Amino acid sequence: MSDTFESVDLDRLRSGFGVKWGLDDDLLNAWVADMDFGIPGPVRARLREVVDREDFGYPHWPGGDPVVAAFEQRMRDRYGWAPEPGRTRVFTDLIQILQVVIEHATAPGDGIALHVPNYPPFLASIHRAGRRPVPLPVLKGERGWEFPVDARRLRDEGCTMLLLVNPHNPTGRVFRREELRAFADAARELDLVVLSDEIHADLTYDPHRHVPFASLDDDTAARTITATSATKAFNLAATRCAVAHVGHEGVRRELDRAPLDYFGTPSLLGRVATVAAWRESEDWHRRLMHRLTRNRDLVADWSRESDVDCVPPEATYLAWLDFSRTGLTDPADAVLRAGVRLSPGPEFAQHTAVDAKPFARLNFATSEDLLLRVLAGIDGAVNG
Amino acid sequence: MSDTFESVDLDRLRSGFGVKWGLDDDLLNAWVADMDFGIPGPVRARLREVVDREDFGYPHWPGGDPVVAAFEQRMRDRYGWAPEPGRTRVFTDLIQILQVVIEHATAPGDGIALHVPNYPPFLASIHRAGRRPVPLPVLKGERGWEFPVDARRLRDEGCTMLLLVNPHNPTGRVFRREELRAFADAARELDLVVLSDEIHADLTYDPHRHVPFASLDDDTAARTITATSATKAFNLAATRCAVAHVGHEGVRRELDRAPLDYFGTPSLLGRVATVAAWRESEDWHRRLMHRLTRNRDLVADWSRESDVDCVPPEATYLAWLDFSRTGLTDPADAVLRAGVRLSPGPEFAQHTAVDAKPFARLNFATSEDLLLRVLAGIDGAVNG
Repeated sequence: MSDTFESVDLDRLRSGFGVKWGLDDDLLNAWVADMDFGIPGPVRARLREVVDREDFGYPHWPGGDPVVAAFEQRMRDRYGWAPEPGRTRVFTDLIQILQVVIEHATAPGDGIALHVPNYPPFLASIHRAGRRPVPLPVLKGERGWEFPVDARRLRDEGCTMLLLVNPHNPTGRVFRREELRAFADAARELDLVVLSDEIHADLTYDPHRHVPFASLDDDTAARTITATSATKAFNLAATRCAVAHVGHEGVRRELDRAPLDYFGTPSLLGRVATVAAWRESEDWHRRLMHRLTRNRDLVADWSRESDVDCVPPEATYLAWLDFSRTGLTDPADAVLRAGVRLSPGPEFAQHTAVDAKPFARLNFATSEDLLLRVLAGIDGAVNG
Repeated sequence: MSDTFESVDLDRLRSGFGVKWGLDDDLLNAWVADMDFGIPGPVRARLREVVDREDFGYPHWPGGDPVVAAFEQRMRDRYGWAPEPGRTRVFTDLIQILQVVIEHATAPGDGIALHVPNYPPFLASIHRAGRRPVPLPVLKGERGWEFPVDARRLRDEGCTMLLLVNPHNPTGRVFRREELRAFADAARELDLVVLSDEIHADLTYDPHRHVPFASLDDDTAARTITATSATKAFNLAATRCAVAHVGHEGVRRELDRAPLDYFGTPSLLGRVATVAAWRESEDWHRRLMHRLTRNRDLVADWSRESDVDCVPPEATYLAWLDFSRTGLTDPADAVLRAGVRLSPGPEFAQHTAVDAKPFARLNFATSEDLLLRVLAGIDGAVNG
């Protein structure tokens, strides 16, 4: 097992499309959304095959979309959940799925419950759609992050939908079965539609185990839209391919009423990459998790020696850094002046009254060398 | 100039995704929508570059989407039309664009005028959306196909939109400027939104010239959505990338009100393929048009010796075959029994009272050898 897990080749990436770590204005871009690694070898091989075959005609899958089959099998094999056949639709990305579900499952003015802090594009999408983000509290307790739920408050706030992000972004928490049970009970009590974003599930660290929300029981399955994609855990964001299992019958009927191609269709290449990731890339994924585990531990060790607090994430390559004890009023800005770009905490609480000013999010999916430079930069800002 | 223009390698394609010519049940699949050729070398090279660079992070284009820039420049350089900046949106395909425009520019029950015969998915989309396809007549005159327009009839039929397919599918007619003028006058008189599908423009044979509808005058530009894609002329259907220039201010505002990612986003690979096709693949395209011109002439010569009539197309790789004189009541079925699958005429008139039973559509974008076998098969059905 090599430490240099397909680490980034800066010269190769310099001519690329994305914002890359360490490429922009001499900053270390620890705010980017994707990993500073390559892609699985089997994905590269399958994409090359398609390109070399020059087979870009209209796809024809008499046996059904292979992305759907690969999703269903992965859920069964890896998470013990058998998605009901015929309910999985393919989209181009998770944000699209959220926006489509918001439009078809809620009305303007409705409250949408979600944990805050949360992924900024989700908060922005809810706000832009004229719905109200209703924050569920994320509390720091003795044993790390806690996620209590108060159904009465959600009712008072006029919530019609729960957006669950599990594993949670940005804290990296993997919800326990009993936590999911509490969310499910509240959802049933209030008859909420639930969108469960499980895109980080494949980035869960041992010994934690991801539990699909829809696997809890029949009632939960029947009110849940489960959204995921291979793009996060296999570093394929730009290929644009995601799936939604629409357990909720009303939302399913709404989507079926829309024109057949209204939401667009992912490319053949995105589909091929997704299937190769889910079906053929376990070895790469195991090495990835080894690298990420080491990085996570490195961040945890650093945090214990630092005034920057961090509950080690149980999943994701993201660390939610708490600068409260440092006295910095705008930690991301202070760290930026030390040459490291983090995602500012307030973005993760936008359009809510939650105070995330003492926080910033770190992406640690990079080489150990760059990560050490990032942490040194943060130290410089904190101690400088 | 070789006759064997990157002709299909059956063994290579046999393992592929699409329905291919000559691969299915020993039939010659002359009904397929894409060409029986490979893709341009520059597209292959750029796709390989991206795959080899493993750069599949979230794309970042501070200077704007390169697909939009390539579209705007191509329209200027090739067709003398300067699309108004800031009005071009990227979608995954033309059918999606039609369905989105129908939803946002018309109301259920509205009439949508279009020439019939027309592309079957367009007729199906209009019908499924609860709008009414209102056929514009396509008449065979002394000098080929004629496309008169009667504004009063469109008004009586409650039309609010005109769907123009130029070059026309399935006849392959390239509309003259004076014909477009007549459509534009009717559109102004009835205040119609116009969706102009110009995806076949790059497949126009000399000496014909494609004229973008939106280039006619300011009023026309201000009521027109121009839709196109590199996927048709460069054989890239599966990459899923299309553009719509939304000249109509009301439709533009409607689309701007939708959630930002509601309609999905094409993959990086689709974008890279599109830009390489539009900016770097002129040589391939010139050779393609040479091959297609020869095939078109071959079909025309064959038709003159046959009871199957065909006005030679001025664009597209499609021939609209008229079997009226053969006495066959279901020509596609008769030809199928001779081993050649054509697209049955009635599909091109679905959900209308237009009689297209004596017709069938032939795709002639294949090798000369396969095309000769296809024509021989048709002869067998007609004479058998």
